[in-house]
Amino acid sequence: MTERSSHPNMYDCWLGYRPLGPEALAADERNLLSRIAVVGVSAVLHTAREELLRGLAALTGNEPLSVPWQTEQPHVVIAAPGSAEAGAAWGTLGRGPAGLRPGEDEVIALAELPGRSEGPGSRRIVITGSTEAACLHAVFAFLRRLQAGQGTGGLPAAEATANRLRMVNHWDNLDGSIERGYAGKSIFFADGQVTQDLRRVTDYARLLASVGVNAVSVNNVNVTRAAARLLTPAHLPRLARLAEVFRRYGIRVFLSISFDSPIVLSGVRTADPLDPEVGTWWRRQVAEVYEHIPDLGGFVVKADSESRPGPAVYGRSQAEGANVLAAALRPFGGIVVWRAFVYNCFQDWRDRSTDRARACYDTFMPLDGDFADNVIAAIKLGPMDFQVREPASPLLFALRQTSQAIEVQITQEYTGQQKDLCFLHPQWHEVMALPATVAGEAGTLAGAVSGYPTGRPHGGVTGVANVGDDPSWTGHVLAQANLYAFGRLAWDPVTEPRAVAAEWVAQTFGIAEPVFSTVLQMLLESWPIYESYTAPLGVGWMVTPHHHYGPDIDGYEYSRWGTYHFADRDGIGVDRTKATGTGYTVQYEAGQAALYEDIASCPDELLLFFHHVPYTHRLKSGKTVIQHIYDSHFDGAAAAQRLLDTWLTLAGQVDPARFENVRGRLELQVVNAAQWRDVVNTYFARKSGIPDEKGRRIF
Amino acid sequence: MTERSSHPNMYDCWLGYRPLGPEALAADERNLLSRIAVVGVSAVLHTAREELLRGLAALTGNEPLSVPWQTEQPHVVIAAPGSAEAGAAWGTLGRGPAGLRPGEDEVIALAELPGRSEGPGSRRIVITGSTEAACLHAVFAFLRRLQAGQGTGGLPAAEATANRLRMVNHWDNLDGSIERGYAGKSIFFADGQVTQDLRRVTDYARLLASVGVNAVSVNNVNVTRAAARLLTPAHLPRLARLAEVFRRYGIRVFLSISFDSPIVLSGVRTADPLDPEVGTWWRRQVAEVYEHIPDLGGFVVKADSESRPGPAVYGRSQAEGANVLAAALRPFGGIVVWRAFVYNCFQDWRDRSTDRARACYDTFMPLDGDFADNVIAAIKLGPMDFQVREPASPLLFALRQTSQAIEVQITQEYTGQQKDLCFLHPQWHEVMALPATVAGEAGTLAGAVSGYPTGRPHGGVTGVANVGDDPSWTGHVLAQANLYAFGRLAWDPVTEPRAVAAEWVAQTFGIAEPVFSTVLQMLLESWPIYESYTAPLGVGWMVTPHHHYGPDIDGYEYSRWGTYHFADRDGIGVDRTKATGTGYTVQYEAGQAALYEDIASCPDELLLFFHHVPYTHRLKSGKTVIQHIYDSHFDGAAAAQRLLDTWLTLAGQVDPARFENVRGRLELQVVNAAQWRDVVNTYFARKSGIPDEKGRRIF
Repeated sequence: MTERSSHPNMYDCWLGYRPLGPEALAADERNLLSRIAVVGVSAVLHTAREELLRGLAALTGNEPLSVPWQTEQPHVVIAAPGSAEAGAAWGTLGRGPAGLRPGEDEVIALAELPGRSEGPGSRRIVITGSTEAACLHAVFAFLRRLQAGQGTGGLPAAEATANRLRMVNHWDNLDGSIERGYAGKSIFFADGQVTQDLRRVTDYARLLASVGVNAVSVNNVNVTRAAARLLTPAHLPRLARLAEVFRRYGIRVFLSISFDSPIVLSGVRTADPLDPEVGTWWRRQVAEVYEHIPDLGGFVVKADSESRPGPAVYGRSQAEGANVLAAALRPFGGIVVWRAFVYNCFQDWRDRSTDRARACYDTFMPLDGDFADNVIAAIKLGPMDFQVREPASPLLFALRQTSQAIEVQITQEYTGQQKDLCFLHPQWHEVMALPATVAGEAGTLAGAVSGYPTGRPHGGVTGVANVGDDPSWTGHVLAQANLYAFGRLAWDPVTEPRAVAAEWVAQTFGIAEPVFSTVLQMLLESWPIYESYTAPLGVGWMVTPHHHYGPDIDGYEYSRWGTYHFADRDGIGVDRTKATGTGYTVQYEAGQAALYEDIASCPDELLLFFHHVPYTHRLKSGKTVIQHIYDSHFDGAAAAQRLLDTWLTLAGQVDPARFENVRGRLELQVVNAAQWRDVVNTYFARKSGIPDEKGRRIF
Repeated sequence: MTERSSHPNMYDCWLGYRPLGPEALAADERNLLSRIAVVGVSAVLHTAREELLRGLAALTGNEPLSVPWQTEQPHVVIAAPGSAEAGAAWGTLGRGPAGLRPGEDEVIALAELPGRSEGPGSRRIVITGSTEAACLHAVFAFLRRLQAGQGTGGLPAAEATANRLRMVNHWDNLDGSIERGYAGKSIFFADGQVTQDLRRVTDYARLLASVGVNAVSVNNVNVTRAAARLLTPAHLPRLARLAEVFRRYGIRVFLSISFDSPIVLSGVRTADPLDPEVGTWWRRQVAEVYEHIPDLGGFVVKADSESRPGPAVYGRSQAEGANVLAAALRPFGGIVVWRAFVYNCFQDWRDRSTDRARACYDTFMPLDGDFADNVIAAIKLGPMDFQVREPASPLLFALRQTSQAIEVQITQEYTGQQKDLCFLHPQWHEVMALPATVAGEAGTLAGAVSGYPTGRPHGGVTGVANVGDDPSWTGHVLAQANLYAFGRLAWDPVTEPRAVAAEWVAQTFGIAEPVFSTVLQMLLESWPIYESYTAPLGVGWMVTPHHHYGPDIDGYEYSRWGTYHFADRDGIGVDRTKATGTGYTVQYEAGQAALYEDIASCPDELLLFFHHVPYTHRLKSGKTVIQHIYDSHFDGAAAAQRLLDTWLTLAGQVDPARFENVRGRLELQVVNAAQWRDVVNTYFARKSGIPDEKGRRIF
């Protein structure tokens, strides 16, 4: 394992607290921050205290004293839920003694109370939350404010999370490899076993807790026969120790399971969810798991998807499949995160009537209401698969009687693989902010996802992890921003990308200029840049098959994966209209459906996702499609070069390890962008025969 | 290891001698064949006797008696070179007592001599050769005649081989995998070691010896660090046992070596061939190898090719690289087989001036005369890489002062991977029969390759093996024909494909109809069929990158491998002319150069290899290029279906194991051919916009 010692700046990510300058804190603030107290005793509160101590020591340059909570001196106190201190804090916020309001699941608070002495400047700051984990989250929120230079003012402040499930999914294999991993080997598994060196896991749990993540699934959703055995005593004792680490940080562990576990792990000859023997088997197996991990979050399941086993094998519905697991988990408070990524991956490319984009809605919408209450349908952000640009999945807007989570991909499978810079929060945020009718009222997709307006018992956000054992965790140092932003988005989908990115830059590189503004700007430009030199106008794919990095325009055009662009000498795009195409647009609410159906109103950036148009079609920008392709690819590659040039201006202002890490990756990005530019432009110039208006070099 | 016992018919290949019917042999012939004698004692003669015994026992149904060679009764005698019996046999052929004539290296003979008694029908048949291995080859030739129903007539007969080196190259890795292997795991290596179970190796040596192969390289030319250690005592004892098996069959073992072995295996800091320390290292290491394997054939080397180390790393020529090895091997009679497959595999696809087809000639022709006498340049049949259709490599015609071997690929990397049927002898034979000026006289390429006319000390044919531990050896039972045909071609490049295929079918399935004629016809049609549904008119490639099975028209179009088709909306092909293209045509002799240079004379099947033409260009067939593409792909896929239909008519007439093996693979071929048809036709219809004249279905 790569140790922190060799690359502390990379390794610490956004928790590498830098000392605050003398101007950042007044003397009385420093005095206040020099004492900490805790009301309550528990493992999580202990963690909260340790984190507060560690953060304040680094930020202020002085290790705080631990004091009794009754002290009369100024201090910071972590107050357990239900304590008098907490009640008083909630009172200053106009909340009842428990802190929670109707429709809230977790809330954190920072409040200022008068000190117990009468002296001037006598005060105390109370850090609390509706749960012990919320207290920990509140500690990190407090430290974040300090690091950003906000001092101790502006209190009281409370913040309720928008999502009950804030989950990171690892696609880690028992052999230590990571499917779609671009940052080294697994931090959980090696050589077929759960790791016993838990130092790195502990540091990871800190990072996740610091942004409010409360759930982590540790193994790949593509469950091998070997990984299916994680449910057995062969692995459970070590898994329990892993769960213990996360538990101290308020995070519940989930396991990805194979739907045919009854067959793989025992003598049961079927995994038919309606077979009584199967139900019995799951109940017994789940009970055994909970003996080792009493607070296991539950299971993540990829079923009937990309050749994974599932209920369809037995003629059963997705709901029937999920519910047999839900029944086994219910007594223990566990839930099923059932992935909605179900489609035909043996499609005949010759068949234009089948549309992969329709599959998720067509499969799940008829089952709305059939899922048990402790099932969450995990629905990918778009209807295809984590492309740089997709419309939001229509199923996200439509489900009413099913708890759901929106699934995003933090790991950059299709967005540069942590070689190319691509800060993904803007994409996620844009989708979460889409208008949606929720429980009959105008709202946003974020509201629908949360499940609160529809009274669902669950709801939230899941993201596929981008972390490995690389010294930087994420391979590309700037890709740490995506992990940070994921947690912040899951907690609070409303805050704008600029604000989230600024938080991350401030904590990771500090607020000194020009580094702060330069990095911030690079992050915010990066997604549009990546989009501009890859597949145009929402059509997606065009990537090298299998590993998905770099261009191969026809790489998936004649394959079984349902991912086509239909480019011919005259035009390009997929007709998904009701009028003349696959009818996919009908899956949206009427307003959105009409928007996409009409070529005149369909947004440019999604034009080719919804329509097949001639290369000479004029976009709203006034450009033809072909000229847009040329322009965006020349511009995108030039912008990639500018990212590198910009970074190079920071030489000497960023520590050498991180500077070189980013420089090296930006250099790869420049090469990749040039390859995309030339391949895409050449492909379309050869096919369309239409020259670039500006006469630039196409091959 | 899969044993013969489970699938004897597959396993025995063409050596599954079937009893001859009563009509096949007269009574006096059966009498003659019931006694065998041997003159001379050696391991190879012992093998020859064992093979004769085994073959005659199976063919006649009676185990022959071993008799002293002085017997007066009719018998068959294997006569060692130099024996009086051999001398007498040569005498009946008008040859001197040693058998060899000037310019011959190995000759085999079958002769009839009168018996030592005076009785009617008293005679003996002498089987001999110019070497002990030749005696063994003569035994197999004799058995072949019998199996084909030719009896014991038509003697005397002598046959000199055309090639001194007849070599099979294995791309087997120490872990048991086989690069470009389509028939299971290695029969030489497993788990990082040379195998100790030599039964299968023995059976393989029999197969090779039966068709005259006299050399085998056992490990992959892409030599890993682990495989570099084959040169050391870590592996030499086991390798010696492997070599002992082959030695008994007259076959010398070669090793593929890494050019940077001095670095990999020792403390030498360079592999610079002109560094004295390097020369010393090689001499010492080679001496150690020969202590274990005194008759090692030598080394096979892939250097400066596809990222393999080589002399170019040190600014040295290919000759300087080869010669340091040659000097080390010379004292032991070893040779260097130096692959001429050197090209830039990091080409920029944007650069149309670089032509991979030129690389081999451009690199090696200036070095003609610089190579040591015990170096053989192994030159691939075509200038690119084992495509279904290529012109012959111009270097093969041009070298005068360098020994050469033509390298073919028996394993069907680009020709169907032993799923699709593709009998390759017609391709090899066609190239060997090309007119060539050799030593100032009109001849054929086969003559140039042999090296005899130019007085070279070496010359021959090498082929990449298609064999693994599959029960059938080759995966596809009918792919056994390629291994057989390779050996026969190497021995005798003149015999026509029909005759070679007929030999194989007769020995493998028998001469009973309809099996004999049906299988024969399927073999002979198979190469044109495979060509017709894959890349058109000699342009090559269009395969799925890396694994090379199935179509991906642009799969290599924007890559670094130098393999492009340059299709745009107007036309397709690579301009390799002197007038307007890369100038590759100039590498040929004047007549051939003119043939290819002129679009009017360039053969249709190579048109797109040499010229970029519009889709509307008319071929000599009268069809346009685009219509030829459509027609050949519709026809080719239909022909693949016919192959399957034809095979199905043999149900019940071929043993079930072989019948099902071939049926299963032909079913895969039908699917593959349909995919090629539809992808190629759709690609070009979309690109050209020109409809099929016959209005067939294109997607």
